[in-house]
Amino acid sequence: MDLSAFGFYQPQVDRLIDLALEEDVGTGDRTTLATIPAESTGVGRVLVKERLVLAGMPFFARVFARVDPAVTVTVHVPDGTLVEPGIVVAEVHGATRSLLVGERTALNILQRLSGVATLTRRFVDAVAGTGAKVCDTRKTTPGMRVMQKYAVAMGGGSNHRFGLDSGVLIKDNHIAACGGVTAAIERARAASPHLLKIEVEVKNLDELELAIAARADVILLDNMTTEAMAEAVRRVRATGLPILTEASGNLGLARLREVAETGVDLLSVGALTHSAVAADLSMKL
Amino acid sequence: MDLSAFGFYQPQVDRLIDLALEEDVGTGDRTTLATIPAESTGVGRVLVKERLVLAGMPFFARVFARVDPAVTVTVHVPDGTLVEPGIVVAEVHGATRSLLVGERTALNILQRLSGVATLTRRFVDAVAGTGAKVCDTRKTTPGMRVMQKYAVAMGGGSNHRFGLDSGVLIKDNHIAACGGVTAAIERARAASPHLLKIEVEVKNLDELELAIAARADVILLDNMTTEAMAEAVRRVRATGLPILTEASGNLGLARLREVAETGVDLLSVGALTHSAVAADLSMKL
Amino acid sequence: MDLSAFGFYQPQVDRLIDLALEEDVGTGDRTTLATIPAESTGVGRVLVKERLVLAGMPFFARVFARVDPAVTVTVHVPDGTLVEPGIVVAEVHGATRSLLVGERTALNILQRLSGVATLTRRFVDAVAGTGAKVCDTRKTTPGMRVMQKYAVAMGGGSNHRFGLDSGVLIKDNHIAACGGVTAAIERARAASPHLLKIEVEVKNLDELELAIAARADVILLDNMTTEAMAEAVRRVRATGLPILTEASGNLGLARLREVAETGVDLLSVGALTHSAVAADLSMKL
Amino acid sequence: MDLSAFGFYQPQVDRLIDLALEEDVGTGDRTTLATIPAESTGVGRVLVKERLVLAGMPFFARVFARVDPAVTVTVHVPDGTLVEPGIVVAEVHGATRSLLVGERTALNILQRLSGVATLTRRFVDAVAGTGAKVCDTRKTTPGMRVMQKYAVAMGGGSNHRFGLDSGVLIKDNHIAACGGVTAAIERARAASPHLLKIEVEVKNLDELELAIAARADVILLDNMTTEAMAEAVRRVRATGLPILTEASGNLGLARLREVAETGVDLLSVGALTHSAVAADLSMKL
Amino acid sequence: MDLSAFGFYQPQVDRLIDLALEEDVGTGDRTTLATIPAESTGVGRVLVKERLVLAGMPFFARVFARVDPAVTVTVHVPDGTLVEPGIVVAEVHGATRSLLVGERTALNILQRLSGVATLTRRFVDAVAGTGAKVCDTRKTTPGMRVMQKYAVAMGGGSNHRFGLDSGVLIKDNHIAACGGVTAAIERARAASPHLLKIEVEVKNLDELELAIAARADVILLDNMTTEAMAEAVRRVRATGLPILTEASGNLGLARLREVAETGVDLLSVGALTHSAVAADLSMKL
Amino acid sequence: MDLSAFGFYQPQVDRLIDLALEEDVGTGDRTTLATIPAESTGVGRVLVKERLVLAGMPFFARVFARVDPAVTVTVHVPDGTLVEPGIVVAEVHGATRSLLVGERTALNILQRLSGVATLTRRFVDAVAGTGAKVCDTRKTTPGMRVMQKYAVAMGGGSNHRFGLDSGVLIKDNHIAACGGVTAAIERARAASPHLLKIEVEVKNLDELELAIAARADVILLDNMTTEAMAEAVRRVRATGLPILTEASGNLGLARLREVAETGVDLLSVGALTHSAVAADLSMKL
Repeated sequence: MDLSAFGFYQPQVDRLIDLALEEDVGTGDRTTLATIPAESTGVGRVLVKERLVLAGMPFFARVFARVDPAVTVTVHVPDGTLVEPGIVVAEVHGATRSLLVGERTALNILQRLSGVATLTRRFVDAVAGTGAKVCDTRKTTPGMRVMQKYAVAMGGGSNHRFGLDSGVLIKDNHIAACGGVTAAIERARAASPHLLKIEVEVKNLDELELAIAARADVILLDNMTTEAMAEAVRRVRATGLPILTEASGNLGLARLREVAETGVDLLSVGALTHSAVAADLSMKL
Repeated sequence: MDLSAFGFYQPQVDRLIDLALEEDVGTGDRTTLATIPAESTGVGRVLVKERLVLAGMPFFARVFARVDPAVTVTVHVPDGTLVEPGIVVAEVHGATRSLLVGERTALNILQRLSGVATLTRRFVDAVAGTGAKVCDTRKTTPGMRVMQKYAVAMGGGSNHRFGLDSGVLIKDNHIAACGGVTAAIERARAASPHLLKIEVEVKNLDELELAIAARADVILLDNMTTEAMAEAVRRVRATGLPILTEASGNLGLARLREVAETGVDLLSVGALTHSAVAADLSMKL
Repeated sequence: MDLSAFGFYQPQVDRLIDLALEEDVGTGDRTTLATIPAESTGVGRVLVKERLVLAGMPFFARVFARVDPAVTVTVHVPDGTLVEPGIVVAEVHGATRSLLVGERTALNILQRLSGVATLTRRFVDAVAGTGAKVCDTRKTTPGMRVMQKYAVAMGGGSNHRFGLDSGVLIKDNHIAACGGVTAAIERARAASPHLLKIEVEVKNLDELELAIAARADVILLDNMTTEAMAEAVRRVRATGLPILTEASGNLGLARLREVAETGVDLLSVGALTHSAVAADLSMKL
Repeated sequence: MDLSAFGFYQPQVDRLIDLALEEDVGTGDRTTLATIPAESTGVGRVLVKERLVLAGMPFFARVFARVDPAVTVTVHVPDGTLVEPGIVVAEVHGATRSLLVGERTALNILQRLSGVATLTRRFVDAVAGTGAKVCDTRKTTPGMRVMQKYAVAMGGGSNHRFGLDSGVLIKDNHIAACGGVTAAIERARAASPHLLKIEVEVKNLDELELAIAARADVILLDNMTTEAMAEAVRRVRATGLPILTEASGNLGLARLREVAETGVDLLSVGALTHSAVAADLSMKL
Repeated sequence: MDLSAFGFYQPQVDRLIDLALEEDVGTGDRTTLATIPAESTGVGRVLVKERLVLAGMPFFARVFARVDPAVTVTVHVPDGTLVEPGIVVAEVHGATRSLLVGERTALNILQRLSGVATLTRRFVDAVAGTGAKVCDTRKTTPGMRVMQKYAVAMGGGSNHRFGLDSGVLIKDNHIAACGGVTAAIERARAASPHLLKIEVEVKNLDELELAIAARADVILLDNMTTEAMAEAVRRVRATGLPILTEASGNLGLARLREVAETGVDLLSVGALTHSAVAADLSMKL
Repeated sequence: MDLSAFGFYQPQVDRLIDLALEEDVGTGDRTTLATIPAESTGVGRVLVKERLVLAGMPFFARVFARVDPAVTVTVHVPDGTLVEPGIVVAEVHGATRSLLVGERTALNILQRLSGVATLTRRFVDAVAGTGAKVCDTRKTTPGMRVMQKYAVAMGGGSNHRFGLDSGVLIKDNHIAACGGVTAAIERARAASPHLLKIEVEVKNLDELELAIAARADVILLDNMTTEAMAEAVRRVRATGLPILTEASGNLGLARLREVAETGVDLLSVGALTHSAVAADLSMKL
């Protein structure tokens, strides 16, 4: 399994993997070169050690492909699956030296991405049935944007824009520079490629009205009370226009469902990527 | 402040920063280009929003240097400081466009490193007075090895080897391949550059005796009971040799002090880097 | 003037410039090294030799910055200006060796981008007053996407999506794979980041109706007769929805205005970038 | 078919192709990922839509090799062939996702190179029988030097030097810096690797005499009248020395044959690369 | 045979090989492209032309793998073997063009590394039986550190630290900055990862005593007389501690054995890498 | 002093320097970071320790520029000067950490290039007065082609072609593939850019006659006796054509003058680069 078979063409992923391998391996794995014969081969089994949503196997496999193209990775469980402890989700066959050299980097990626998917699943489950989508933000780990967005999707979440170039999101600084919500939306619409929607952040119902009037495509309700958000959703729906609403700010698990029930379309949660910890997986030879 | 003034020459750091900027900015910040005039300048203030140990300002500054060499970053609080909410730790002056383009990437790094330093400080405080050092592992975020090791140091922790090339650590697979602890140590010593110490992982007191007899420089007590570790430390000390002992496995905050009190020299804790979350810092223009 | 002052952070531009310099300079400019003393300095004047819309000065300047940071470029005429022959639009000061080494690469870029801007201006002028926007396509010169999109904007045109990641455009192959227009739009909407609009290509009025019913954000009228396009625009407007219409296929200068007068919002013209030739500019020392 | 089978080792070509793919694909083809299943496979047929000289198939194939090594490209018509509309010149087999991701970049290259070859053929045909060679210049598209030189050769043209390092060409600035034609030639010969010929640009017959006397290997007759060029050729031939003559400046199709008939050896035509437009080729799945 | 099969994961080696190929091949091997048909295949035989210790075959093979993956290299003699003139040590099969393009770069590497191995063997033989190890330094050829360290090992030598990050070696400037040997050792021990040994350079027996007292792991006896070194070794041994001694400075072949007989553990010899010349090997097609 | 001020634009040089620094510094200079305060500054003096021809100061300076742009290098003695032991040829001012981090890499380059220049000077002196030029070959250190060619020039030698792309040199394999000297020359002339001379290797006087008849520009007399070379030179001169002769093979210092006195124009000597050792220079803080 390589990235292209998976439907990816991802030079950025390869650059991150190369960087990760170089920082871990440096001029060579002294211990392995000294103790493991070049001709030794082995099998590594990837073992789940806590309940988790698996995510990242294409990248896990890609690490070994960079270390040694002769290593093969066989995946038993598809990404996105909720897996119980004790399950072997993949096997890695090849030269023992190559397995040991790639192991830590491959696991570091797999564990972090499974951590993101697992946390995402908890947020997604919390709003089950409401119709609201849980989506990520740009608060991702440097260098891992594409991988983490993939993990969010595997956890059942939705992806917000991938970067500053694939969506227009007008925030307070942009509004201030333009002198108001209306001017900012107009200027953005005039200057942006026509396949990018215009999203604008509003802090209260007055700004909401301006955003509606200026025909924003998406309105971000930032740090508003649940009641205000409910009212905002009502007003947007009343327009009959296909405007999406997105909630952000203080969307912890405790409050998330309450907000979802206001009818907002999207809940953007930075925690999916900035507060996920590594899931517990190991590789045994 | 740039990395070289700081005492760093770090091409790997620049590669990660470039990768992070490219994934975030892509072909351009559509919103900012549409709404912020090129000639507009501004000031960003980096605000602490929860109690944390600050870490990462040289890298935060480096992000802006890559985006726009004309941006200046003034740091008010040195890395390693425990900072209370409400404090402004740095100011960023320059073109508003450049501030907005660099902001998220710079914060993503600063927040994650401050998260690592803050968590490290908790572990370090837990063993205060015991003489044991808390050290990191290779379970770091891909691409951020050097930065995270720096954050651990800022949190008061010690750095274990930076990669597979800067230390010999003989684990179960290496021992198995050599047929035993003794042979593995001998083979590693014969083949390794003489400035690298030989560390060996032992699982019980029998293996410990073999490691001592083979003159290991450091002995890793892996997943042993606190009592067994205490006995191991006694036996090592009885040799009069300068052998270090390191504990690993299940070293949560709850148990850490108890293990430290056995007299082990080092406590290696993967959680410092694999379970730290982003600390809460923001930048206000 | 450097790219960041201009509001750009563009590592891809630097990569193209470096590649262009390396292919032209190789191991060194043998002629210049042999005949021009290192200490000689000079001034180069960029002279317009035919009527053109100027575009590309930031990139022109960037070439010299890569060759020799001590070279300065002073721009007399802003990009986007229609310039008559005989005008000097910029001056380059610095070591003669550096001027000669950078000259050809800098001009190759400036001439091509001015060629694109000039051609774009002709298309834009042809539809003056109709309200239709002339926009570019992905038929750009490999490696020059961002630069050419910039040149189109300088010529008065609009930018379509920058790449496959910043917009959804459903074409015949995608429709076929999904079994129809409706399913394709639904699948795309479910899977795409919510800030990307969904554009769908239709070949006739039946497909148009399906696209409207499935709430496409933009409808591409591909290779339709002018009459069919006029009817399509009428039907879209009748919905009262904010759906954009885009015409493509055989949009030469001769027919362009006629199509624009149907009321379509956008005219996408591959020729802007695939059929522009280099404008005539030279640099005299 | 890959570049090495073709006799190329061309890292610069790969760098341009990677850059082109990255700018087009970015973080992923949103439309294709949403609508085309990973397991779908297909065939793309490269169709000629106007009379053209085909050039660029090795690079076309290389694009797909970078996207997905499992894609195969079968070429039916060799580069350099004059092809009529309606002919299928190649087939591409592989995962549908990979075909769609690589299609535009591969075509962008193939169309531009076929455009260069086709235009070159027109110039070459114009001087048929005269013995004069039509050659290219350094006025190439940034990043595509090697590819365009290849296309010129496929069109029947000859390649001038590939860059500043593979030939000495003394122009007005070099002459001025040395104080005259004679000194410039002498200095260049003394300082240059002995496998590089010395070419010098002359503007009139007086300079020509100096160039002959100083034993230039090639003499560039720049912007001279046809009559002056004819006289220059006569004088050079009269020396009995193996000096080549090259004409440049205003060598449009209208005047080209007249100049060729003066007996000059080479006609350098910037238009081959700076004024070629994309030829019409498409790929149908 | 590729690097991974050999037990290497070495991106730095690939970067050097790519750089070497690019500087040699540039835009293409003009002679070979003009005279050798693309379909021609051949065999190259690597012939030893003087008595030498062979080293570098994995890198030799890697050059051809970068030029053309279809080329195969069959190695007849393992690295580290003392080979007599006239022996064919390897064969290279593939496209003649690829063989000619890779030949010089591959040989340039193989000849230099065999030169290092051969010179190392002479130094190693000179101290046979003494128990002292001959080791290299950081005085290596820029870009070839890992390769040359490998060649030293093939010649029977030992490797000192690979770089500034994989060992602590306190020299005069460090001592001066800390105010003395004792403080320097203490500061280094406190700040260094615990798997790095602390080596300190001493110039006389007084400094030696300080180094012993501060528990240095390795003591470098720099430019001392043979008698002083003998005394130093006696004092170190008297401590009963596992301290290594290393001699450096003026360790030419004439004096080497005398120094080795003092009982020092290590002899570091810059000449192994800074004074080795290319061994005589050629490739015949 | 940077490379551009020097008249160089050399990305390949920067790539080699970066590679060299990365392999030496890795994740950081542990010793220096532990013992030298960040704020300490110092001066390094580059001291000549044996009679040598200095070469490489621009590259020496460039290393420090890459490590820390704030470091300044002041050069007292121009490259190409014969320098006696005891002379300080340059001073380096800056942060002590930066000086120590860059020192070894900078010296490794300077010492090797001065070694090449010094050896070249010996060969050049050996043929003083004969009019023959001593030139280098492609037997250079991988990655250092441009630097070593520069060092040869500083030693008074001439540069042969820089790579396979900047000169045509027909050797035995090319001749065999074409079926003879005549056909090979004709094919090469037809296919090569017209600014590249055609050089052909001949082994005897019969081949020489063929080469003359086919109008080779340069004839390489390979491994011929001195007498045969003298005869070859006579025959070439008798033609009255501007054909250069080059001798190669077994051109040691002992025989060099004898060969030079045959009247050959060029003596190509692989030893200049493959057998030079590092000259003795050090840097004292």
